[in-house]
Amino acid sequence: MLHPQGTLIIIGGREDKTGEKRILKEIAARVHGGKLIIITAASEVPHEVWPEYREIFKKLGVKKIEHFHCNQPEEVRTMDLQKLFDKAKVVFFTGGDQLKLTSKLGGTLVMDYIIEVFKKGGTLAGTSAGASVMGEIMLVGGENAESHKVGNWMMAPGMRFVESLIIDQHFAQRGRIGRLLGAVALNPGVLGIGIDEGTAIIVEQEQFRIMGENAVYVLDGRGVTYTNISEASADQTMSIHDVRLHVLSEPEVFDLKKRTALSMSSGNG
Amino acid sequence: MLHPQGTLIIIGGREDKTGEKRILKEIAARVHGGKLIIITAASEVPHEVWPEYREIFKKLGVKKIEHFHCNQPEEVRTMDLQKLFDKAKVVFFTGGDQLKLTSKLGGTLVMDYIIEVFKKGGTLAGTSAGASVMGEIMLVGGENAESHKVGNWMMAPGMRFVESLIIDQHFAQRGRIGRLLGAVALNPGVLGIGIDEGTAIIVEQEQFRIMGENAVYVLDGRGVTYTNISEASADQTMSIHDVRLHVLSEPEVFDLKKRTALSMSSGNG
Repeated sequence: MLHPQGTLIIIGGREDKTGEKRILKEIAARVHGGKLIIITAASEVPHEVWPEYREIFKKLGVKKIEHFHCNQPEEVRTMDLQKLFDKAKVVFFTGGDQLKLTSKLGGTLVMDYIIEVFKKGGTLAGTSAGASVMGEIMLVGGENAESHKVGNWMMAPGMRFVESLIIDQHFAQRGRIGRLLGAVALNPGVLGIGIDEGTAIIVEQEQFRIMGENAVYVLDGRGVTYTNISEASADQTMSIHDVRLHVLSEPEVFDLKKRTALSMSSGNG
Repeated sequence: MLHPQGTLIIIGGREDKTGEKRILKEIAARVHGGKLIIITAASEVPHEVWPEYREIFKKLGVKKIEHFHCNQPEEVRTMDLQKLFDKAKVVFFTGGDQLKLTSKLGGTLVMDYIIEVFKKGGTLAGTSAGASVMGEIMLVGGENAESHKVGNWMMAPGMRFVESLIIDQHFAQRGRIGRLLGAVALNPGVLGIGIDEGTAIIVEQEQFRIMGENAVYVLDGRGVTYTNISEASADQTMSIHDVRLHVLSEPEVFDLKKRTALSMSSGNG
Protein backbone atom coordinates (compact mmCIF):
# COMPACT_ATOMS: atom_id res chain seq x y z
CA MET A 1 0.00 0.00 0.00
CA LEU A 2 1.43 3.34 -1.00
CA HIS A 3 -0.36 5.49 1.56
CA PRO A 4 -1.20 3.15 4.41
CA GLN A 5 -2.77 5.77 6.65
CA GLY A 6 -6.14 6.02 4.94
CA THR A 7 -9.02 3.78 3.99
CA LEU A 8 -10.22 2.71 0.56
CA ILE A 9 -13.84 1.70 -0.02
CA ILE A 10 -14.01 0.05 -3.42
CA ILE A 11 -17.47 -0.83 -4.72
CA GLY A 12 -18.30 -3.13 -7.63
CA GLY A 13 -21.07 -0.85 -8.91
CA ARG A 14 -24.83 -0.73 -8.27
CA GLU A 15 -24.49 -0.18 -4.54
CA ASP A 16 -27.80 -0.07 -2.70
CA LYS A 17 -29.13 3.52 -2.98
CA THR A 18 -32.71 3.00 -1.86
CA GLY A 19 -32.81 0.32 0.84
CA GLU A 20 -30.50 -0.05 3.83
CA LYS A 21 -27.68 1.70 1.92
CA ARG A 22 -25.12 -0.07 4.10
CA ILE A 23 -22.13 0.68 1.89
CA LEU A 24 -22.99 4.35 1.38
CA LYS A 25 -23.64 4.61 5.14
CA GLU A 26 -20.16 3.26 5.75
CA ILE A 27 -18.81 6.05 3.55
CA ALA A 28 -20.98 8.71 5.19
CA ALA A 29 -19.85 7.60 8.65
CA ARG A 30 -16.27 8.42 7.76
CA VAL A 31 -16.94 12.08 7.02
CA HIS A 32 -17.54 12.79 10.74
CA GLY A 33 -17.76 16.57 10.77
CA GLY A 34 -15.45 17.00 7.81
CA LYS A 35 -16.26 17.36 4.14
CA LEU A 36 -17.29 14.87 1.47
CA ILE A 37 -16.17 15.62 -2.09
CA ILE A 38 -18.01 13.87 -4.89
CA ILE A 39 -16.02 13.57 -8.11
CA THR A 40 -18.18 13.00 -11.18
CA ALA A 41 -15.42 13.34 -13.78
CA ALA A 42 -16.01 9.74 -14.95
CA SER A 43 -19.63 10.43 -15.75
CA GLU A 44 -21.30 11.62 -18.93
CA VAL A 45 -24.25 12.85 -16.89
CA PRO A 46 -22.66 14.67 -13.92
CA HIS A 47 -25.74 16.91 -13.61
CA GLU A 48 -27.78 13.77 -12.80
CA VAL A 49 -25.23 11.87 -10.76
CA TRP A 50 -24.15 14.71 -8.47
CA PRO A 51 -27.60 15.71 -7.14
CA GLU A 52 -28.53 12.04 -6.70
CA TYR A 53 -25.54 11.30 -4.46
CA ARG A 54 -25.85 14.70 -2.73
CA GLU A 55 -29.41 13.86 -1.65
CA ILE A 56 -28.48 10.37 -0.49
CA PHE A 57 -25.50 11.51 1.56
CA LYS A 58 -27.48 14.43 2.98
CA LYS A 59 -30.13 11.99 4.20
CA LEU A 60 -27.34 9.88 5.67
CA GLY A 61 -26.38 12.87 7.83
CA VAL A 62 -23.43 14.34 5.95
CA LYS A 63 -23.45 18.12 6.43
CA LYS A 64 -20.78 19.34 4.01
CA ILE A 65 -20.89 17.89 0.52
CA GLU A 66 -19.01 19.42 -2.40
CA HIS A 67 -18.95 18.60 -6.09
CA PHE A 68 -15.85 18.31 -8.24
CA HIS A 69 -16.17 17.97 -12.00
CA CYS A 70 -14.03 18.90 -14.96
CA ASN A 71 -14.15 18.23 -18.67
CA GLN A 72 -10.48 18.87 -19.41
CA PRO A 73 -7.35 18.87 -17.25
CA GLU A 74 -6.77 22.58 -17.87
CA GLU A 75 -9.96 23.46 -15.99
CA VAL A 76 -8.34 22.22 -12.81
CA ARG A 77 -5.76 25.04 -12.97
CA THR A 78 -8.27 27.80 -12.33
CA MET A 79 -10.05 26.06 -9.44
CA ASP A 80 -9.59 27.01 -5.80
CA LEU A 81 -8.59 23.52 -4.73
CA GLN A 82 -7.28 24.66 -1.36
CA LYS A 83 -10.72 25.92 -0.43
CA LEU A 84 -12.49 22.88 -1.92
CA PHE A 85 -10.33 20.36 -0.09
CA ASP A 86 -10.24 22.23 3.22
CA LYS A 87 -11.33 19.76 5.93
CA ALA A 88 -12.07 17.09 3.31
CA LYS A 89 -12.32 13.69 4.98
CA VAL A 90 -13.80 11.59 2.18
CA VAL A 91 -13.50 11.66 -1.61
CA PHE A 92 -16.05 9.65 -3.59
CA PHE A 93 -15.57 8.76 -7.26
CA THR A 94 -18.81 8.00 -9.09
CA GLY A 95 -19.15 5.55 -11.96
CA GLY A 96 -18.85 6.25 -15.66
CA ASP A 97 -15.74 5.69 -17.74
CA GLN A 98 -12.49 5.04 -15.88
CA LEU A 99 -10.44 6.52 -18.73
CA LYS A 100 -12.29 9.81 -18.34
CA LEU A 101 -11.24 9.87 -14.69
CA THR A 102 -7.56 9.17 -15.22
CA SER A 103 -7.16 11.21 -18.39
CA LYS A 104 -8.80 14.29 -16.86
CA LEU A 105 -7.33 14.15 -13.36
CA GLY A 106 -4.03 12.30 -13.81
CA GLY A 107 -1.04 14.61 -13.44
CA THR A 108 -3.14 17.55 -12.25
CA LEU A 109 -2.90 19.25 -8.89
CA VAL A 110 -6.19 17.71 -7.76
CA MET A 111 -4.47 14.33 -7.48
CA ASP A 112 -2.10 15.81 -4.89
CA TYR A 113 -5.06 17.03 -2.85
CA ILE A 114 -6.80 13.66 -3.09
CA ILE A 115 -3.69 11.81 -1.97
CA GLU A 116 -3.28 14.30 0.86
CA VAL A 117 -6.77 13.39 2.15
CA PHE A 118 -5.74 9.74 2.08
CA LYS A 119 -2.38 10.35 3.79
CA LYS A 120 -4.09 12.22 6.60
CA GLY A 121 -6.22 9.16 7.38
CA GLY A 122 -9.20 10.05 5.21
CA THR A 123 -11.19 7.75 2.97
CA LEU A 124 -11.17 7.40 -0.80
CA ALA A 125 -14.26 5.62 -2.08
CA GLY A 126 -15.34 4.73 -5.60
CA THR A 127 -17.94 2.71 -7.42
CA SER A 128 -17.78 0.99 -10.81
CA ALA A 129 -15.35 3.08 -12.92
CA GLY A 130 -14.50 4.86 -9.68
CA ALA A 131 -13.45 1.47 -8.28
CA SER A 132 -11.29 0.47 -11.24
CA VAL A 133 -9.09 3.56 -11.00
CA MET A 134 -7.95 2.69 -7.46
CA GLY A 135 -5.51 0.00 -8.58
CA GLU A 136 -2.09 0.23 -10.14
CA ILE A 137 -3.35 -0.87 -13.52
CA MET A 138 -6.93 -0.81 -14.73
CA LEU A 139 -8.79 -2.82 -17.32
CA VAL A 140 -10.48 -0.68 -19.93
CA GLY A 141 -11.45 -3.25 -22.53
CA GLY A 142 -11.66 -6.96 -22.99
CA GLU A 143 -14.46 -9.41 -22.89
CA ASN A 144 -17.71 -9.60 -21.01
CA ALA A 145 -19.10 -13.14 -20.85
CA GLU A 146 -16.32 -14.59 -22.98
CA SER A 147 -13.11 -16.45 -22.36
CA HIS A 148 -10.02 -14.38 -22.89
CA LYS A 149 -8.26 -14.18 -26.24
CA VAL A 150 -4.50 -13.80 -26.03
CA GLY A 151 -4.29 -10.49 -27.88
CA ASN A 152 -7.45 -8.90 -26.61
CA TRP A 153 -6.38 -6.78 -23.71
CA MET A 154 -6.54 -3.09 -22.98
CA MET A 155 -5.09 -1.67 -19.84
CA ALA A 156 -4.18 1.78 -18.61
CA PRO A 157 -2.31 3.15 -15.62
CA GLY A 158 -4.63 3.58 -12.66
CA MET A 159 -4.50 6.11 -9.83
CA ARG A 160 -2.49 3.62 -7.82
CA PHE A 161 -3.96 4.26 -4.38
CA VAL A 162 -3.14 0.62 -3.70
CA GLU A 163 -0.16 -1.28 -5.12
CA SER A 164 -0.04 -4.48 -7.14
CA LEU A 165 -3.80 -4.82 -7.51
CA ILE A 166 -5.98 -4.90 -10.58
CA ILE A 167 -9.58 -4.22 -9.64
CA ASP A 168 -12.51 -5.24 -11.80
CA GLN A 169 -16.16 -4.47 -11.08
CA HIS A 170 -19.69 -5.66 -12.04
CA PHE A 171 -17.76 -8.90 -11.84
CA ALA A 172 -20.10 -11.91 -11.84
CA GLN A 173 -22.91 -9.84 -13.33
CA ARG A 174 -20.96 -9.07 -16.50
CA GLY A 175 -19.02 -12.34 -16.63
CA ARG A 176 -15.61 -10.71 -16.31
CA ILE A 177 -13.45 -13.51 -14.95
CA GLY A 178 -12.03 -14.04 -18.45
CA ARG A 179 -10.56 -10.58 -18.76
CA LEU A 180 -9.24 -10.52 -15.18
CA LEU A 181 -7.56 -13.89 -15.72
CA GLY A 182 -5.98 -12.36 -18.82
CA ALA A 183 -4.54 -9.57 -16.69
CA VAL A 184 -3.18 -12.03 -14.12
CA ALA A 185 -1.61 -14.12 -16.90
CA LEU A 186 0.31 -11.08 -18.15
CA ASN A 187 1.95 -10.67 -14.77
CA PRO A 188 1.11 -13.25 -12.11
CA GLY A 189 2.70 -10.99 -9.51
CA VAL A 190 -0.34 -8.74 -9.71
CA LEU A 191 -3.36 -9.75 -7.65
CA GLY A 192 -6.69 -9.67 -9.49
CA ILE A 193 -9.70 -8.54 -7.46
CA GLY A 194 -13.16 -8.91 -9.00
CA ILE A 195 -15.92 -7.14 -7.09
CA ASP A 196 -19.59 -7.94 -7.68
CA GLU A 197 -22.35 -5.37 -7.88
CA GLY A 198 -23.79 -4.32 -4.54
CA THR A 199 -20.56 -5.34 -2.84
CA ALA A 200 -17.47 -3.51 -1.60
CA ILE A 201 -14.05 -4.13 -0.18
CA ILE A 202 -12.88 -1.89 2.64
CA VAL A 203 -9.10 -1.71 2.49
CA GLU A 204 -7.23 -0.70 5.62
CA GLN A 205 -3.56 -1.31 6.28
CA GLU A 206 -2.72 -4.56 4.50
CA GLN A 207 -6.16 -6.15 4.72
CA PHE A 208 -9.57 -5.78 3.22
CA ARG A 209 -12.95 -6.92 4.42
CA ILE A 210 -16.08 -7.58 2.40
CA MET A 211 -19.33 -5.67 2.78
CA GLY A 212 -22.47 -6.22 0.74
CA GLU A 213 -24.77 -8.80 -0.70
CA ASN A 214 -22.62 -10.51 -3.31
CA ALA A 215 -19.08 -11.84 -3.65
CA VAL A 216 -15.51 -10.74 -4.21
CA TYR A 217 -13.14 -12.91 -6.27
CA VAL A 218 -9.40 -12.98 -5.68
CA LEU A 219 -7.21 -14.40 -8.46
CA ASP A 220 -3.72 -15.14 -7.21
CA GLY A 221 -1.28 -16.04 -9.97
CA ARG A 222 1.79 -16.66 -7.86
CA GLY A 223 1.52 -20.43 -8.24
CA VAL A 224 0.89 -20.33 -11.99
CA THR A 225 2.80 -23.07 -13.80
CA TYR A 226 1.99 -22.24 -17.41
CA THR A 227 0.30 -19.71 -19.66
CA ASN A 228 0.32 -19.31 -23.43
CA ILE A 229 -0.21 -15.54 -23.27
CA SER A 230 3.23 -14.49 -24.46
CA GLU A 231 3.56 -17.19 -27.10
CA ALA A 232 0.24 -17.78 -28.78
CA SER A 233 -1.17 -15.65 -31.58
CA ALA A 234 -3.54 -12.82 -30.72
CA ASP A 235 -6.76 -14.60 -31.70
CA GLN A 236 -6.02 -17.75 -29.73
CA THR A 237 -7.84 -18.50 -26.51
CA MET A 238 -5.71 -17.88 -23.45
CA SER A 239 -4.76 -20.74 -21.21
CA ILE A 240 -3.39 -20.51 -17.69
CA HIS A 241 -2.73 -23.31 -15.21
CA ASP A 242 -2.80 -23.33 -11.42
CA VAL A 243 -4.42 -20.03 -10.54
CA ARG A 244 -5.48 -19.84 -6.90
CA LEU A 245 -9.06 -18.61 -6.65
CA HIS A 246 -10.86 -17.35 -3.55
CA VAL A 247 -14.51 -16.36 -3.45
CA LEU A 248 -15.16 -14.14 -0.44
CA SER A 249 -18.36 -12.86 1.10
CA GLU A 250 -19.24 -10.63 4.02
CA PRO A 251 -17.80 -10.51 6.68
CA GLU A 252 -14.64 -12.21 5.48
CA VAL A 253 -11.22 -10.59 5.57
CA PHE A 254 -8.35 -11.00 3.12
CA ASP A 255 -4.72 -10.38 4.00
CA LEU A 256 -3.07 -8.67 1.03
CA LYS A 257 0.45 -9.28 2.26
CA LYS A 258 0.04 -12.98 2.97
CA ARG A 259 -2.45 -13.37 0.13
CA THR A 260 -4.70 -15.51 2.28
CA ALA A 261 -8.32 -15.29 3.27
CA LEU A 262 -8.89 -15.36 6.99
CA SER A 263 -11.59 -17.94 7.54
CA MET A 264 -14.41 -16.97 9.83
CA SER A 265 -14.51 -20.26 11.67
CA SER A 266 -10.95 -19.82 12.91
CA GLY A 267 -11.95 -16.59 14.58
CA ASN A 268 -9.42 -14.54 12.65
CA GLY A 269 -11.88 -12.25 10.98
CA MET B 1 -13.84 -43.61 -15.61
CA LEU B 2 -16.50 -46.27 -15.43
CA HIS B 3 -16.18 -47.59 -18.98
CA PRO B 4 -12.66 -46.74 -20.04
CA GLN B 5 -12.85 -48.40 -23.44
CA GLY B 6 -14.78 -45.71 -25.26
CA THR B 7 -14.50 -42.02 -26.03
CA LEU B 8 -16.60 -39.13 -24.80
CA ILE B 9 -16.90 -35.93 -26.83
CA ILE B 10 -18.47 -33.32 -24.58
CA ILE B 11 -19.39 -30.01 -26.20
CA GLY B 12 -20.26 -26.76 -24.41
CA GLY B 13 -23.08 -25.94 -26.86
CA ARG B 14 -23.19 -23.91 -30.09
CA GLU B 15 -20.65 -26.05 -31.89
CA ASP B 16 -19.80 -24.80 -35.36
CA LYS B 17 -22.48 -26.15 -37.75
CA THR B 18 -21.80 -24.00 -40.81
CA GLY B 19 -18.06 -23.35 -41.08
CA GLU B 20 -15.23 -25.84 -40.65
CA LYS B 21 -17.39 -27.95 -38.30
CA ARG B 22 -14.26 -29.37 -36.69
CA ILE B 23 -15.99 -30.81 -33.64
CA LEU B 24 -18.81 -32.43 -35.59
CA LYS B 25 -16.22 -33.76 -38.06
CA GLU B 26 -14.40 -35.36 -35.14
CA ILE B 27 -17.65 -37.10 -34.21
CA ALA B 28 -18.39 -38.13 -37.80
CA ALA B 29 -14.90 -39.59 -38.18
CA ARG B 30 -15.59 -42.01 -35.36
CA VAL B 31 -18.57 -43.65 -37.07
CA HIS B 32 -16.27 -45.30 -39.66
CA GLY B 33 -18.67 -47.62 -41.43
CA GLY B 34 -20.87 -48.11 -38.39
CA LYS B 35 -23.99 -46.29 -37.35
CA LEU B 36 -24.60 -42.89 -35.75
CA ILE B 37 -27.62 -42.59 -33.46
CA ILE B 38 -28.91 -39.11 -32.74
CA ILE B 39 -30.88 -38.82 -29.51
CA THR B 40 -33.15 -35.79 -29.39
CA ALA B 41 -34.97 -36.67 -26.16
CA ALA B 42 -33.66 -33.47 -24.50
CA SER B 43 -35.21 -31.27 -27.15
CA GLU B 44 -38.63 -29.65 -27.35
CA VAL B 45 -38.27 -29.44 -31.12
CA PRO B 46 -36.94 -32.88 -32.16
CA HIS B 47 -38.55 -32.49 -35.59
CA GLU B 48 -36.24 -29.52 -36.21
CA VAL B 49 -33.12 -30.76 -34.48
CA TRP B 50 -33.04 -34.25 -35.99
CA PRO B 51 -33.15 -33.26 -39.69
CA GLU B 52 -30.61 -30.48 -39.06
CA TYR B 53 -28.02 -32.84 -37.59
CA ARG B 54 -28.89 -35.58 -40.12
CA GLU B 55 -28.06 -33.23 -42.99
CA ILE B 56 -24.82 -32.05 -41.39
CA PHE B 57 -23.57 -35.54 -40.62
CA LYS B 58 -24.62 -36.78 -44.05
CA LYS B 59 -22.52 -34.03 -45.63
CA LEU B 60 -19.67 -35.06 -43.36
CA GLY B 61 -19.79 -38.51 -44.95
CA VAL B 62 -21.74 -40.54 -42.41
CA LYS B 63 -23.76 -43.18 -44.26
CA LYS B 64 -26.00 -44.65 -41.55
CA ILE B 65 -27.75 -42.17 -39.30
CA GLU B 66 -30.68 -43.12 -37.08
CA HIS B 67 -32.96 -41.08 -34.87
CA PHE B 68 -33.97 -41.95 -31.33
CA HIS B 69 -36.65 -39.94 -29.56
CA CYS B 70 -39.19 -40.67 -26.88
CA ASN B 71 -41.60 -38.58 -24.85
CA GLN B 72 -42.04 -41.02 -21.97
CA PRO B 73 -39.95 -43.91 -20.65
CA GLU B 74 -42.70 -46.42 -21.47
CA GLU B 75 -42.28 -45.76 -25.20
CA VAL B 76 -38.84 -47.34 -25.02
CA ARG B 77 -40.38 -50.72 -24.17
CA THR B 78 -41.99 -51.18 -27.57
CA MET B 79 -38.95 -50.14 -29.60
CA ASP B 80 -36.73 -52.58 -31.46
CA LEU B 81 -33.56 -51.41 -29.75
CA GLN B 82 -31.54 -54.39 -30.91
CA LYS B 83 -32.11 -53.41 -34.50
CA LEU B 84 -31.58 -49.71 -33.83
CA PHE B 85 -28.27 -50.20 -32.03
CA ASP B 86 -26.95 -52.87 -34.39
CA LYS B 87 -23.46 -51.73 -35.51
CA ALA B 88 -23.87 -48.42 -33.65
CA LYS B 89 -20.48 -46.77 -33.22
CA VAL B 90 -21.49 -43.28 -32.07
CA VAL B 91 -24.37 -41.93 -30.00
CA PHE B 92 -24.96 -38.17 -30.11
CA PHE B 93 -27.12 -36.34 -27.55
CA THR B 94 -28.50 -33.02 -28.79
CA GLY B 95 -29.18 -30.00 -26.60
CA GLY B 96 -32.39 -29.10 -24.83
CA ASP B 97 -33.17 -29.84 -21.20
CA GLN B 98 -30.89 -32.26 -19.38
CA LEU B 99 -33.69 -33.33 -17.04
CA LYS B 100 -35.75 -34.45 -20.03
CA LEU B 101 -32.86 -36.69 -21.06
CA THR B 102 -32.28 -38.34 -17.71
CA SER B 103 -35.94 -38.59 -16.70
CA LYS B 104 -36.96 -40.19 -20.00
CA LEU B 105 -34.01 -42.51 -20.56
CA GLY B 106 -32.70 -43.20 -17.07
CA GLY B 107 -33.46 -46.75 -15.94
CA THR B 108 -34.72 -47.83 -19.37
CA LEU B 109 -33.21 -50.50 -21.56
CA VAL B 110 -31.86 -47.89 -23.96
CA MET B 111 -29.24 -46.91 -21.37
CA ASP B 112 -27.88 -50.46 -21.48
CA TYR B 113 -27.53 -50.24 -25.24
CA ILE B 114 -25.82 -46.85 -25.03
CA ILE B 115 -23.35 -48.10 -22.44
CA GLU B 116 -22.72 -51.17 -24.58
CA VAL B 117 -21.65 -48.90 -27.48
CA PHE B 118 -19.25 -47.16 -25.12
CA LYS B 119 -17.86 -50.40 -23.67
CA LYS B 120 -17.15 -51.72 -27.14
CA GLY B 121 -14.93 -48.72 -27.86
CA GLY B 122 -17.57 -46.49 -29.42
CA THR B 123 -18.09 -42.78 -28.86
CA LEU B 124 -20.73 -40.99 -26.84
CA ALA B 125 -21.02 -37.33 -27.79
CA GLY B 126 -23.28 -34.59 -26.50
CA THR B 127 -23.75 -30.86 -26.72
CA SER B 128 -25.21 -28.41 -24.18
CA ALA B 129 -27.80 -30.42 -22.18
CA GLY B 130 -26.34 -33.48 -23.89
CA ALA B 131 -22.98 -32.54 -22.36
CA SER B 132 -24.30 -32.02 -18.83
CA VAL B 133 -25.77 -35.52 -18.59
CA MET B 134 -22.35 -37.17 -19.10
CA GLY B 135 -21.16 -36.50 -15.56
CA GLU B 136 -22.00 -38.17 -12.29
CA ILE B 137 -24.04 -35.23 -11.11
CA MET B 138 -25.51 -32.49 -13.25
CA LEU B 139 -26.47 -28.91 -12.55
CA VAL B 140 -30.06 -28.12 -13.44
CA GLY B 141 -30.54 -24.75 -11.80
CA GLY B 142 -28.56 -22.02 -10.18
CA GLU B 143 -27.33 -18.69 -11.31
CA ASN B 144 -26.23 -17.30 -14.62
CA ALA B 145 -24.06 -14.20 -14.26
CA GLU B 146 -24.37 -14.12 -10.48
CA SER B 147 -22.26 -15.21 -7.57
CA HIS B 148 -23.54 -18.30 -5.83
CA LYS B 149 -25.97 -18.12 -2.92
CA VAL B 150 -25.51 -20.85 -0.33
CA GLY B 151 -28.99 -22.33 -0.66
CA ASN B 152 -29.47 -21.90 -4.35
CA TRP B 153 -28.47 -25.19 -5.88
CA MET B 154 -30.28 -27.78 -7.92
CA MET B 155 -28.58 -30.94 -8.96
CA ALA B 156 -29.72 -34.26 -10.34
CA PRO B 157 -28.05 -37.60 -10.98
CA GLY B 158 -26.40 -37.65 -14.39
CA MET B 159 -25.83 -40.57 -16.76
CA ARG B 160 -22.44 -41.10 -15.18
CA PHE B 161 -20.44 -42.02 -18.26
CA VAL B 162 -17.50 -40.47 -16.44
CA GLU B 163 -16.95 -40.54 -12.67
CA SER B 164 -16.44 -37.68 -10.22
CA LEU B 165 -17.04 -34.93 -12.75
CA ILE B 166 -19.64 -32.20 -12.85
CA ILE B 167 -19.87 -30.75 -16.33
CA ASP B 168 -21.28 -27.32 -17.07
CA GLN B 169 -21.73 -25.80 -20.52
CA HIS B 170 -22.20 -22.39 -22.22
CA PHE B 171 -19.72 -21.60 -19.49
CA ALA B 172 -18.14 -18.16 -19.98
CA GLN B 173 -20.99 -17.10 -22.26
CA ARG B 174 -23.61 -17.49 -19.54
CA GLY B 175 -21.36 -16.55 -16.61
CA ARG B 176 -21.67 -19.91 -14.87
CA ILE B 177 -18.55 -20.04 -12.73
CA GLY B 178 -20.67 -19.11 -9.70
CA ARG B 179 -22.90 -22.17 -9.90
CA LEU B 180 -20.03 -24.54 -10.68
CA LEU B 181 -18.06 -23.20 -7.71
CA GLY B 182 -21.16 -23.88 -5.63
CA ALA B 183 -21.10 -27.50 -6.77
CA VAL B 184 -17.41 -27.86 -5.96
CA ALA B 185 -17.96 -26.34 -2.52
CA LEU B 186 -20.58 -28.99 -1.72
CA ASN B 187 -18.03 -31.72 -2.32
CA PRO B 188 -14.49 -30.65 -3.18
CA GLY B 189 -13.73 -34.22 -4.21
CA VAL B 190 -15.74 -33.66 -7.37
CA LEU B 191 -13.96 -31.95 -10.26
CA GLY B 192 -15.88 -29.10 -11.92
CA ILE B 193 -15.48 -28.79 -15.69
CA GLY B 194 -16.91 -25.70 -17.39
CA ILE B 195 -16.97 -25.90 -21.18
CA ASP B 196 -17.43 -22.81 -23.33
CA GLU B 197 -19.60 -22.63 -26.42
CA GLY B 198 -17.93 -23.81 -29.61
CA THR B 199 -15.54 -25.92 -27.57
CA ALA B 200 -15.32 -29.59 -26.61
CA ILE B 201 -13.36 -31.95 -24.45
CA ILE B 202 -12.48 -35.33 -25.90
CA VAL B 203 -12.17 -37.79 -23.03
CA GLU B 204 -10.16 -40.95 -23.58
CA GLN B 205 -8.76 -43.16 -20.86
CA GLU B 206 -7.93 -40.84 -17.97
CA GLN B 207 -7.24 -37.71 -20.02
CA PHE B 208 -9.11 -35.16 -22.03
CA ARG B 209 -7.94 -32.79 -24.72
CA ILE B 210 -9.50 -29.52 -25.80
CA MET B 211 -10.89 -28.86 -29.27
CA GLY B 212 -12.53 -25.65 -30.42
CA GLU B 213 -12.32 -21.91 -30.36
CA ASN B 214 -12.91 -21.07 -26.71
CA ALA B 215 -11.82 -22.32 -23.29
CA VAL B 216 -12.44 -25.06 -20.77
CA TYR B 217 -12.29 -24.29 -17.05
CA VAL B 218 -11.27 -26.86 -14.46
CA LEU B 219 -12.18 -26.15 -10.82
CA ASP B 220 -10.26 -28.42 -8.47
CA GLY B 221 -11.44 -28.22 -4.88
CA ARG B 222 -9.01 -30.67 -3.32
CA GLY B 223 -6.94 -27.89 -1.75
CA VAL B 224 -9.94 -25.97 -0.41
CA THR B 225 -9.31 -24.64 3.09
CA TYR B 226 -12.69 -23.13 3.90
CA THR B 227 -16.25 -22.75 2.67
CA ASN B 228 -19.36 -21.44 4.38
CA ILE B 229 -21.70 -23.61 2.30
CA SER B 230 -22.79 -25.98 5.06
CA GLU B 231 -23.03 -23.32 7.76
CA ALA B 232 -24.40 -20.11 6.30
CA SER B 233 -28.08 -19.42 5.72
CA ALA B 234 -29.57 -20.10 2.30
CA ASP B 235 -29.64 -16.50 1.10
CA GLN B 236 -26.02 -15.77 2.02
CA THR B 237 -23.37 -15.48 -0.65
CA MET B 238 -21.14 -18.51 -0.80
CA SER B 239 -17.48 -18.22 0.02
CA ILE B 240 -14.77 -20.72 -0.78
CA HIS B 241 -11.01 -20.39 -0.31
CA ASP B 242 -8.13 -21.92 -2.23
CA VAL B 243 -9.78 -23.40 -5.29
CA ARG B 244 -7.29 -24.39 -7.98
CA LEU B 245 -8.39 -23.03 -11.34
CA HIS B 246 -7.09 -24.01 -14.77
CA VAL B 247 -8.15 -22.37 -18.02
CA LEU B 248 -7.37 -24.67 -20.93
CA SER B 249 -7.46 -24.11 -24.66
CA GLU B 250 -6.79 -26.23 -27.72
CA PRO B 251 -4.64 -28.35 -28.00
CA GLU B 252 -4.02 -28.74 -24.28
CA VAL B 253 -4.49 -31.99 -22.41
CA PHE B 254 -5.69 -32.51 -18.84
CA ASP B 255 -4.91 -35.59 -16.79
CA LEU B 256 -8.01 -36.49 -14.79
CA LYS B 257 -6.18 -38.86 -12.48
CA LYS B 258 -3.35 -36.50 -11.56
CA ARG B 259 -5.63 -33.46 -11.89
CA THR B 260 -2.95 -31.56 -13.75
CA ALA B 261 -2.85 -29.81 -17.08
CA LEU B 262 -0.05 -30.97 -19.32
CA SER B 263 1.61 -27.83 -20.55
CA MET B 264 2.34 -27.61 -24.23
CA SER B 265 5.80 -26.19 -23.83
CA SER B 266 6.99 -29.23 -21.91
CA GLY B 267 6.06 -31.42 -24.85
CA ASN B 268 3.68 -33.54 -22.81
CA GLY B 269 0.61 -32.77 -24.80
